[in-house]
Amino acid sequence: MDYKLAVRDNHPEDTVIDIPGKSGITRIGKGYCTIIAGPCAVESRDKYLEIAMQVKNMGAHILRGGAFKPRTSPYSFAGLGIEGLKILEEARDITGLPVITELMDIRDLEQVCRYSDIIQIGSRNMQNFSLLREVGRVNKPIMVKRGLAATIEEWLLAAEYVLCEGNEKVILCERGIRTFEVMTRNTVDIGAVALLKDLSHLPIIVDPSHATGKRHLVKPVAMAAVAAGADGLMIEVHQNPEEALSDGPQSLTPELFISVLDNLKGIAALNNRIFQ
Amino acid sequence: MDYKLAVRDNHPEDTVIDIPGKSGITRIGKGYCTIIAGPCAVESRDKYLEIAMQVKNMGAHILRGGAFKPRTSPYSFAGLGIEGLKILEEARDITGLPVITELMDIRDLEQVCRYSDIIQIGSRNMQNFSLLREVGRVNKPIMVKRGLAATIEEWLLAAEYVLCEGNEKVILCERGIRTFEVMTRNTVDIGAVALLKDLSHLPIIVDPSHATGKRHLVKPVAMAAVAAGADGLMIEVHQNPEEALSDGPQSLTPELFISVLDNLKGIAALNNRIFQ
Amino acid sequence: MDYKLAVRDNHPEDTVIDIPGKSGITRIGKGYCTIIAGPCAVESRDKYLEIAMQVKNMGAHILRGGAFKPRTSPYSFAGLGIEGLKILEEARDITGLPVITELMDIRDLEQVCRYSDIIQIGSRNMQNFSLLREVGRVNKPIMVKRGLAATIEEWLLAAEYVLCEGNEKVILCERGIRTFEVMTRNTVDIGAVALLKDLSHLPIIVDPSHATGKRHLVKPVAMAAVAAGADGLMIEVHQNPEEALSDGPQSLTPELFISVLDNLKGIAALNNRIFQ
Amino acid sequence: MDYKLAVRDNHPEDTVIDIPGKSGITRIGKGYCTIIAGPCAVESRDKYLEIAMQVKNMGAHILRGGAFKPRTSPYSFAGLGIEGLKILEEARDITGLPVITELMDIRDLEQVCRYSDIIQIGSRNMQNFSLLREVGRVNKPIMVKRGLAATIEEWLLAAEYVLCEGNEKVILCERGIRTFEVMTRNTVDIGAVALLKDLSHLPIIVDPSHATGKRHLVKPVAMAAVAAGADGLMIEVHQNPEEALSDGPQSLTPELFISVLDNLKGIAALNNRIFQ
Repeated sequence: MDYKLAVRDNHPEDTVIDIPGKSGITRIGKGYCTIIAGPCAVESRDKYLEIAMQVKNMGAHILRGGAFKPRTSPYSFAGLGIEGLKILEEARDITGLPVITELMDIRDLEQVCRYSDIIQIGSRNMQNFSLLREVGRVNKPIMVKRGLAATIEEWLLAAEYVLCEGNEKVILCERGIRTFEVMTRNTVDIGAVALLKDLSHLPIIVDPSHATGKRHLVKPVAMAAVAAGADGLMIEVHQNPEEALSDGPQSLTPELFISVLDNLKGIAALNNRIFQ
Repeated sequence: MDYKLAVRDNHPEDTVIDIPGKSGITRIGKGYCTIIAGPCAVESRDKYLEIAMQVKNMGAHILRGGAFKPRTSPYSFAGLGIEGLKILEEARDITGLPVITELMDIRDLEQVCRYSDIIQIGSRNMQNFSLLREVGRVNKPIMVKRGLAATIEEWLLAAEYVLCEGNEKVILCERGIRTFEVMTRNTVDIGAVALLKDLSHLPIIVDPSHATGKRHLVKPVAMAAVAAGADGLMIEVHQNPEEALSDGPQSLTPELFISVLDNLKGIAALNNRIFQ
Repeated sequence: MDYKLAVRDNHPEDTVIDIPGKSGITRIGKGYCTIIAGPCAVESRDKYLEIAMQVKNMGAHILRGGAFKPRTSPYSFAGLGIEGLKILEEARDITGLPVITELMDIRDLEQVCRYSDIIQIGSRNMQNFSLLREVGRVNKPIMVKRGLAATIEEWLLAAEYVLCEGNEKVILCERGIRTFEVMTRNTVDIGAVALLKDLSHLPIIVDPSHATGKRHLVKPVAMAAVAAGADGLMIEVHQNPEEALSDGPQSLTPELFISVLDNLKGIAALNNRIFQ
Repeated sequence: MDYKLAVRDNHPEDTVIDIPGKSGITRIGKGYCTIIAGPCAVESRDKYLEIAMQVKNMGAHILRGGAFKPRTSPYSFAGLGIEGLKILEEARDITGLPVITELMDIRDLEQVCRYSDIIQIGSRNMQNFSLLREVGRVNKPIMVKRGLAATIEEWLLAAEYVLCEGNEKVILCERGIRTFEVMTRNTVDIGAVALLKDLSHLPIIVDPSHATGKRHLVKPVAMAAVAAGADGLMIEVHQNPEEALSDGPQSLTPELFISVLDNLKGIAALNNRIFQ
């Protein structure tokens, strides 16, 4: 295989990524269990600021929210764009938490860097090699989501594209792969999480929301992820999932989110992970 | 869907299966975390009795060992047959633990019933409907492994074949599904475990050995399985995995097995499960 | 790999299988394009005899019809059993065509051998190794359908199970594999057909009905199969597909069947294949 | 589903795309069988001009050649870039044939439009929605390859992204999907070709080279594609496949390419397709 930088051979110790914020440094990687939470998309200023404060108060470490949304259909809601980025910035100011948002288009790189603390490369762009090379040249952590049908090897080589341009702050995110199963939205590959903790030094986050597509499966899959060694979770939370413009069926209510966090703390402690 | 007996609609409470043995009753189902362990195949009397005592002393609750082995190639070792069954019986006597073994051929049903406490229907026979109906007519617990590419619906309907003949003692076993990923032998579907705990009242066991095909992934995947709600695990353990006639790369040494059990106890306690 | 008898190494020339019948010998293999047709299941004597005469008059070479039907749900119509076999025998007498039917249960082997000219092993039993070994000991051609998610290697090794018991009359049948695509019932693997014509000497038949699950796709996929080198086709035809007890949406009306045959003759001629 | 422009509902007649060139108009769509040929990548001026003249003289209608190559590993040969585009232009001048090349990066759009007659969107970018929207605003035919694990619905919606921006010249290209099968590089979905000819008015091309990954399977799969209704083929041809910088094992020699064309002409004639 063609790995150089993504694997342990030349980098035996785990990578830990520091994300500075108003309230101090948030860490992702060895020894930490980091929770990223928020709605799928930034839908409006008021709603976003409200949910941001809620998840912060419940214990989330990083805020998520899409300003640019990759949608299968050209006719679906595709995010608020720059306006969404500005709302994220405001939420960051108010909560003191760092934010993560997706970058879909190279031409938006400067703006996304300005407003976001972590840049997400979505599943559909995991092999958008121009985009990977570009984010390899900025000084921001990059979270690379696994492609819908990407092998572990291809995923690591996507990370390698970022690393080989000089950006060492790469986070992997398992969000489920596509299989023939239809009762869940995707099939979360828990074995890949375990395998990558051994093969690679990069932190790995699991997204149980996209992986299952069903609200009531988020808790058990989140617990399984941390038990298998994941360094954190990315969880969709929405005030009124029924009214969400995207991904409602897999979004937790704030009440469910608290309950998930409670359970995660036990597992994290068992694995000697710090819940910051 | 065509479920009647496998789902909670007409059977809201969890099924718990009692398996009587020399040392008392072993339980599989709600509230318990049951460990099935042993080598892939019964290879010889001496080796089997030795490993049986070892895993018993380490804390395993049920012994596994194949007498009839389904092998992809007609030229591979296919098990010791009836001789293997007799060795299982001897191990049961010596250890006091119940045993589970696979039934492949309807014509062996009587013998397998005589020597084994639980009958395993393997992945390749998950839709061998004649076999399913036959084991639906005996008074033994039946463990139905998920087919290599079976949907959750098909798997539940396979269980339904057994249940509708009158046998209520059905256990499901997730052993990984086939995907495009090649770094692991199969892809364990942890979301299916979580989903089935909700949809069905039947106990569900996870087989992290077949699911991953790699020894060092057994522990994290086993922990994930229990965290996701599995009622137990089936784990391959061999004195000398290097010399195993089948499945060596995924078999644990006894030392590794102890270490896995230690970790599992913590997770089981967290989920309020009794480690018998 | 563990092939000995299924591949060309020790058997360079193509296998051609002769099936004797009242109207002479029907051939499957090199140089022929053999059409197997009929309804999914034998539903009643009158209906079966009628459709059998129709497809015979239209040019089919072999009659299909299920007496024992493997059904995902235990509550679905599972065939007429022995009564169905007797109807097949009558159809064979009346039309002079050989018949093929599926064997699901070892205990039915003698009866199926008595009434059927070719024995079909269905997808769900492709790795029912006891069944494969048994049909390796009878003097009847065996058609081994590819498993729902079987690799080419596993499929050839299933054929090897039959061959290594002494039965050289093995026919492969590609019926589509399971993928994530939902607009077709299965994904017919046309590349596997081409690859097997090179790797193996065994005849290969394609089943465009199960492979697509949609009536209007049967013709183009049937044409593609013969263009890729298939030795024949197995096509579901029913007088009233709307009323079929199984597989109605993929069954052709007799009118559509004629039209498919017309198109196939052109392709077969182009590939120098004899339409018997 | 969310289709408006890609399906027949509002556009019952087949789309035919005219590509003007020095030697006249080349057509893709109903009634034509159009052959796109050339090496995977433009590797050097001399080699490209040589193979371009060869495939032109043999009967190819359009030249292919990658200047920007999406490579799984960042350390693989990624194409000659702008220099490659200039070589394509020279080949177009010399042969009089139109050329097609892949666009990976929005920032290269102007240059690719300047030098290429058709713009290819590769599998890995099938859901690069920014790129799709941009090419929807230029006056060039766009060939959208199916994603590695894209459903037919997602593929059509990718086409819809281009169409809804005003560019009506969209061509679909089936290049095989990812499955568990390892003996072929991908699994060509011949049923999807048949289904799309019915559901959509857009022309569909099949790429038997990427679909199989094996030189000797290109001919039978190419024949199958045309038999199933494909409007043309994209075939990799290289003077010395052994020395190709990418995709050597699936590239035809010029001699094999002639032989494939000969066979295709027969099938095309049978389907009343004009081989221009």
